[in-house]
Amino acid sequence: MIIVNFKAYPESFGEKGLKLAKICEKVAKESKKEIIVCPQTPDLCLVSKEVSIPVFSQHIDPVEQGSKTGHITLESVKSYISGTLINHSEKRMKIADIDYLVKKCRKFGLTSIVCTNNIDVSMACSLLNPDYIAIEPPELIGGDISVTSASPEIVENSVKNIKKINPKVKVLCGAGVKTGKDVKKALELGTEGVLLASGVVKAENPEKVLRDLVDGI
Amino acid sequence: MIIVNFKAYPESFGEKGLKLAKICEKVAKESKKEIIVCPQTPDLCLVSKEVSIPVFSQHIDPVEQGSKTGHITLESVKSYISGTLINHSEKRMKIADIDYLVKKCRKFGLTSIVCTNNIDVSMACSLLNPDYIAIEPPELIGGDISVTSASPEIVENSVKNIKKINPKVKVLCGAGVKTGKDVKKALELGTEGVLLASGVVKAENPEKVLRDLVDGI
Amino acid sequence: MIIVNFKAYPESFGEKGLKLAKICEKVAKESKKEIIVCPQTPDLCLVSKEVSIPVFSQHIDPVEQGSKTGHITLESVKSYISGTLINHSEKRMKIADIDYLVKKCRKFGLTSIVCTNNIDVSMACSLLNPDYIAIEPPELIGGDISVTSASPEIVENSVKNIKKINPKVKVLCGAGVKTGKDVKKALELGTEGVLLASGVVKAENPEKVLRDLVDGI
Amino acid sequence: MIIVNFKAYPESFGEKGLKLAKICEKVAKESKKEIIVCPQTPDLCLVSKEVSIPVFSQHIDPVEQGSKTGHITLESVKSYISGTLINHSEKRMKIADIDYLVKKCRKFGLTSIVCTNNIDVSMACSLLNPDYIAIEPPELIGGDISVTSASPEIVENSVKNIKKINPKVKVLCGAGVKTGKDVKKALELGTEGVLLASGVVKAENPEKVLRDLVDGI
Repeated sequence: MIIVNFKAYPESFGEKGLKLAKICEKVAKESKKEIIVCPQTPDLCLVSKEVSIPVFSQHIDPVEQGSKTGHITLESVKSYISGTLINHSEKRMKIADIDYLVKKCRKFGLTSIVCTNNIDVSMACSLLNPDYIAIEPPELIGGDISVTSASPEIVENSVKNIKKINPKVKVLCGAGVKTGKDVKKALELGTEGVLLASGVVKAENPEKVLRDLVDGI
Repeated sequence: MIIVNFKAYPESFGEKGLKLAKICEKVAKESKKEIIVCPQTPDLCLVSKEVSIPVFSQHIDPVEQGSKTGHITLESVKSYISGTLINHSEKRMKIADIDYLVKKCRKFGLTSIVCTNNIDVSMACSLLNPDYIAIEPPELIGGDISVTSASPEIVENSVKNIKKINPKVKVLCGAGVKTGKDVKKALELGTEGVLLASGVVKAENPEKVLRDLVDGI
Repeated sequence: MIIVNFKAYPESFGEKGLKLAKICEKVAKESKKEIIVCPQTPDLCLVSKEVSIPVFSQHIDPVEQGSKTGHITLESVKSYISGTLINHSEKRMKIADIDYLVKKCRKFGLTSIVCTNNIDVSMACSLLNPDYIAIEPPELIGGDISVTSASPEIVENSVKNIKKINPKVKVLCGAGVKTGKDVKKALELGTEGVLLASGVVKAENPEKVLRDLVDGI
Repeated sequence: MIIVNFKAYPESFGEKGLKLAKICEKVAKESKKEIIVCPQTPDLCLVSKEVSIPVFSQHIDPVEQGSKTGHITLESVKSYISGTLINHSEKRMKIADIDYLVKKCRKFGLTSIVCTNNIDVSMACSLLNPDYIAIEPPELIGGDISVTSASPEIVENSVKNIKKINPKVKVLCGAGVKTGKDVKKALELGTEGVLLASGVVKAENPEKVLRDLVDGI
């Protein structure tokens, strides 16, 4: 399972975002591997109508429907998505709000992926019963260090500790993945998929990168 | 000019939001008056494709494109909208961010409407050169008091003071408007339009309410 | 153990705060029970110099020392306090920041009390290894309902679940305590103390209220 | 007028902060120039009791007294201070909150200094009637560029534009000042004082730096 986070990159909104989502769909279908896209929020409607692979939201505001001008409620995106990222390192949330959103996702049948920054926080969040924990060790975020070149203990220990606390929670490698080799390594270390962004979105040839990535599965 | 803020109401997202936008369009065309809709952000794409009246955003995050997971950049919505609310009472912003967004709107040819809570803040914001200031006196927000039944001095003084500081800025009445009579009064007091939400969105018959409102113009 | 949160009440700052802290000290000494005070932040210095009972902070900003104008670092208050509240319902924090503060407290030898809003969040936070979890069930906050009159299951279940996850974490009853009878009940339900505010701070005779409370221990 | 912002530097809290404040007091008295100190919030009480020069707060939370655990109200610090910074670049505020605090300062007889990031925001804030605007052009913040070496137009234009809008507002140079020469230049450009931090706080010999600075007045 490969999740492509479109972030707010200039390469991934509107028609460019749709085109990228279609490339993801194409590679997913041809390879028969699971690829999930997280388009920019204003494009969820557009992308979800045009592709058949799962579409996830990058974030949802932890609020109920009502007098909440400018907020993104789960209800307002639920028909466009099959899941959402929660607590991404670029959109950290209060723990009460993570709990609120995980429960709301469950209630509405959406998949929840909670991003976390270290082993203790990963273990803590696993008790909130999300479907997935995406570990984003600060050591691996945004740099050139990959999970294969760096010491793999962080990922391995995270998986082990999360499973010890809550064996139902699945783990994703949320940083340090650039190549199919990294994907393979991440899966060997016990994760069930990877979450990546610039490596695909900003690639000169995203299709080629995606083909390499799915080869790692 | 009547601006309908859809907020995050359960009555105004997805297909229901689209239907409401089409009612606004219908009344606008038949009455030859200007009605602007502010759909929920995930519906901007959907609504903007289906209606010909102006579509505005309820909020835009004050960030540049890039590694900004879960943020709504102006760039990502600009093809769907012709303007945006800024600093709505339910989404207050830092002054440096209001300034940033007003300038970014200008650069991209979008109309900026800065919401304000009292005369001093209205005057201050008028120096940031937005196209419109929507005054939302706390006395009038969310209650049953309308601008006609309440003392009209707040609106009148706001207009006068804003114009004294920056005559190019137009003023909207952002609270206390429920009926055509209120619209008429608001215009008499020097505003160039009104901003309202629940009065239309939560009405049993929004079309009827809108017809009454445009009659006030 | 009774913790008195002074909040930002007009009855509890400056000289009035100091007087209140001295009453707490007096009752603590005479009853030989533990009372802890959480003065308003600007009074930590004043109060800590004048009383010999433990002084805790109501909040600490999750930042390192440096160019952080207007922030309260742990370092800047550590000589005045022996512990701190973290994530109080009126000052909720991101989970990564709770984790950061709990670890920083440990490093500096300070007692950490993490406030939580429900059982799942309590269990999650117990994995961050704070010294105490203060449960603040929304049902009990700020109302007239006390832990004895309301169904005691919430508190009992919280204690049980927290201990199951991390037996080293002690539990405080953070809401619904007004009288010595409530204190007694809270202790019977497995907590090791109570956290309260207005019941003492806004009492006409705080000393009398405190004497009643310590009688419950 | 020289304002020394202690920030949250490790060099400026507790006893070290008090010592630094006393050095400021000594230089102020000997030179007969005005020096104001902004200690770390937990030290306001300590410093205000020990020095006779004016003590300002670095920040105040825009809230009323009450159930506001962990917040710093104006009331709780007012007996320790004679003024406060508002909207510092490291603690930016919503415009409605700046307005609220400026008015609250006036009501309590405290001096208000609103920090701003560019000319438009400076002009806007001057309409909120603070006593001072401290301009902090991003070009000058935290770098080695000083107001004398950099083109002085930014400061000059800010002063001119602020005075045009509200002649009663005085202007401070909030960045780019390191030496007495810079102070002299800042005053020549129309400001009535300077705001600085690391240049004094992190100096090997703060007294020497301060003597040089006051020589510029």
